[in-house]
Amino acid sequence: MTDFGQRDSYVGIMKGVILRICPDAHIIDITHEIPPQDVTAAAYMLQTFTPYFPRGTIHVVVVDPGVGSQRQAIALETPQARYVGPDNGVFAPIWQAAHSTSAPHELHAVALTEPRFWLPQVSATFHGRDIFAPVAAHLACGVALAELGTAVSTLATLPIAEPAWESERRLVGQVITIDHFGNGISNITTAHLARFGADTDLVVTVELPATDIHTTPQQWEGERQATVLTTHHLTIRHTYADVAPGEPLALIGSTGQLEVAVRNGNAAQTLGIVAGSSVLVQPR
Amino acid sequence: MTDFGQRDSYVGIMKGVILRICPDAHIIDITHEIPPQDVTAAAYMLQTFTPYFPRGTIHVVVVDPGVGSQRQAIALETPQARYVGPDNGVFAPIWQAAHSTSAPHELHAVALTEPRFWLPQVSATFHGRDIFAPVAAHLACGVALAELGTAVSTLATLPIAEPAWESERRLVGQVITIDHFGNGISNITTAHLARFGADTDLVVTVELPATDIHTTPQQWEGERQATVLTTHHLTIRHTYADVAPGEPLALIGSTGQLEVAVRNGNAAQTLGIVAGSSVLVQPR
Amino acid sequence: MTDFGQRDSYVGIMKGVILRICPDAHIIDITHEIPPQDVTAAAYMLQTFTPYFPRGTIHVVVVDPGVGSQRQAIALETPQARYVGPDNGVFAPIWQAAHSTSAPHELHAVALTEPRFWLPQVSATFHGRDIFAPVAAHLACGVALAELGTAVSTLATLPIAEPAWESERRLVGQVITIDHFGNGISNITTAHLARFGADTDLVVTVELPATDIHTTPQQWEGERQATVLTTHHLTIRHTYADVAPGEPLALIGSTGQLEVAVRNGNAAQTLGIVAGSSVLVQPR
Repeated sequence: MTDFGQRDSYVGIMKGVILRICPDAHIIDITHEIPPQDVTAAAYMLQTFTPYFPRGTIHVVVVDPGVGSQRQAIALETPQARYVGPDNGVFAPIWQAAHSTSAPHELHAVALTEPRFWLPQVSATFHGRDIFAPVAAHLACGVALAELGTAVSTLATLPIAEPAWESERRLVGQVITIDHFGNGISNITTAHLARFGADTDLVVTVELPATDIHTTPQQWEGERQATVLTTHHLTIRHTYADVAPGEPLALIGSTGQLEVAVRNGNAAQTLGIVAGSSVLVQPR
Repeated sequence: MTDFGQRDSYVGIMKGVILRICPDAHIIDITHEIPPQDVTAAAYMLQTFTPYFPRGTIHVVVVDPGVGSQRQAIALETPQARYVGPDNGVFAPIWQAAHSTSAPHELHAVALTEPRFWLPQVSATFHGRDIFAPVAAHLACGVALAELGTAVSTLATLPIAEPAWESERRLVGQVITIDHFGNGISNITTAHLARFGADTDLVVTVELPATDIHTTPQQWEGERQATVLTTHHLTIRHTYADVAPGEPLALIGSTGQLEVAVRNGNAAQTLGIVAGSSVLVQPR
Repeated sequence: MTDFGQRDSYVGIMKGVILRICPDAHIIDITHEIPPQDVTAAAYMLQTFTPYFPRGTIHVVVVDPGVGSQRQAIALETPQARYVGPDNGVFAPIWQAAHSTSAPHELHAVALTEPRFWLPQVSATFHGRDIFAPVAAHLACGVALAELGTAVSTLATLPIAEPAWESERRLVGQVITIDHFGNGISNITTAHLARFGADTDLVVTVELPATDIHTTPQQWEGERQATVLTTHHLTIRHTYADVAPGEPLALIGSTGQLEVAVRNGNAAQTLGIVAGSSVLVQPR
């Protein structure tokens, strides 16, 4: 997973580097369309797919605005998977989640300090090619995590917007990403909704921002006070086909997150939902 | 082949699911840029690539606007290939074609009714992950089609716009898709043109619709009566280089379909061709 | 590497053809987003990734505006790699570079004249499918280059804009491509800059064209005389993080080329840099 796009040869180069070191590595693309330098978006997305991959899979994440600066390069190991990338917060959510499901002795983190597992020449701008790809390849071909460098005990953190309970019966979250279909995926999960009680009839209210386009939740956060133009009140449905084509709905998406959609349509275009839009949940 | 795009982790998740079940599966992407929910576009495209894949290849198609509704999930087997996806008409053309080239006993269709080949939890919105990917993986690793569920005898159909003979010497088809190069690919094939006789000098006339953008042939169909703004009369050439750069031409494309193109240019942008544009063929 | 995009089935079809002939071939995508018919862009990009792939890798390049005309189809072999594609200049830079690092007897070029390594039917418009993919597959599964056709001694050339020394201390190059991040990658390399002497304090000046959009350096070349609107004077930095977010900078990119960037931003959008923009280097 990178923010490299697919127009250049950057992704292909990383695969070439991996295959030179570990010719039988099986390389799968997740996405290379993370918005440029958006560490938060990458951190959210990382959580969506790692549970579905084989045990021991090596996830290489290169969303790295601090490349060439003092930020560390790291590798992580949990009972489920391994991770290689920059220590800029992108691994913070999965690392925190791993601590809640694993014993401390099952979790290992190292700073990549052993140049013998890198390319001979390391540039200041493309550690994906020079450090992360070769390290991942060595891991895939049998090098142990501990050989890659010195153990680290704490990772960089990431300011993640969590949903807030404005009152006991009023939960306020936000849209964290718009997917390819124009669905607005929120940070409200089934775990949050369970606290309302299973048989409560909930209504989801989407507030649209007064200004135009917000690419990250952080940008929107500061404008929460601004005039809200329009709101939509939605019932939580089971699936898209529960409403008529063109109708908006709320539903629990495939990752367990509350999302706002339009059946056979595009909620971002039709309703104007953007990353950062407020999502309120309360009993009807 | 899906309509998932490449921005999200949906495609990657399906691959993770496949590899957990069948680690040596060889996974090839066709495209994930089918227009959202456009079953017809997927059905057309499916016909273009299946003949070129190894015998027994498993084609997983997830363009599934009815996910979570009563539409069936199916798997098909022909002497050439296997198919897994929703029974919404997307397989209708290849299934009909298979009936014209194979004996009935060589063709097998089942409804996916055996949950032991699915993920343990099935969502209402992502059967690609929960049903189609795991079923395809089990097929790839040796499970027989018949084990996946109960046999079905008829599949959902698809309204496909066929070219029409307005008179014995006047064939009217339509552009069914615009490709990456801006070429307008029509539903008129070499088989249709053969009926004119091999030595007939044919002229292709493209009519442009009076309204703006048409995403599917169905939408355009109803507007066929509307005023046509401009027409282009084109000779059928052998290849792009037969005309000067920037010049429009008609030719038989690589899939045997009549297409309208501009050499080293973009016919959709230059001529205004859209999906749904009428394509008339008649002797000069 | 092709200019096919990812919306159609063209790329998938080539992979199907390869796997039918050589089922264990390991296929890696570089990019399919080369601007349509832009042989120069493909030739530049080819140089960026080939050094990172395993020895003997077969690079298939299909950017082929002359498909179906008299242009030859070729295959090349160097001590490092093999190449298959049209003889339209796309291989000229890597072939020239190979001559400067290898002995003549280590370099082999053949015209693809042996139809037994092609698909049985060859279209006039899709040699990627009918000739290049099957030839690459046969190479991958052990066929020798010499079997593919008759030896050729010279290849088609490509007019490549080289940086020019306007005076002994004034180097003028140009932006050859804009990457996914909006960085302007120039044709000025570390080798050029070395001639200034290692301790010279250099300043990079970017000139913006007076007209709007230039897709190829060739188009811009003829307009070099036109009024230049704005210029930016930049210091060469080590990495993006050496300037504040939003600030422009020049730096040596990961391929050894001088590039113009904006930290955590998009130089093409912010500064208006396009392919063809002039890049001047001189001592401060």
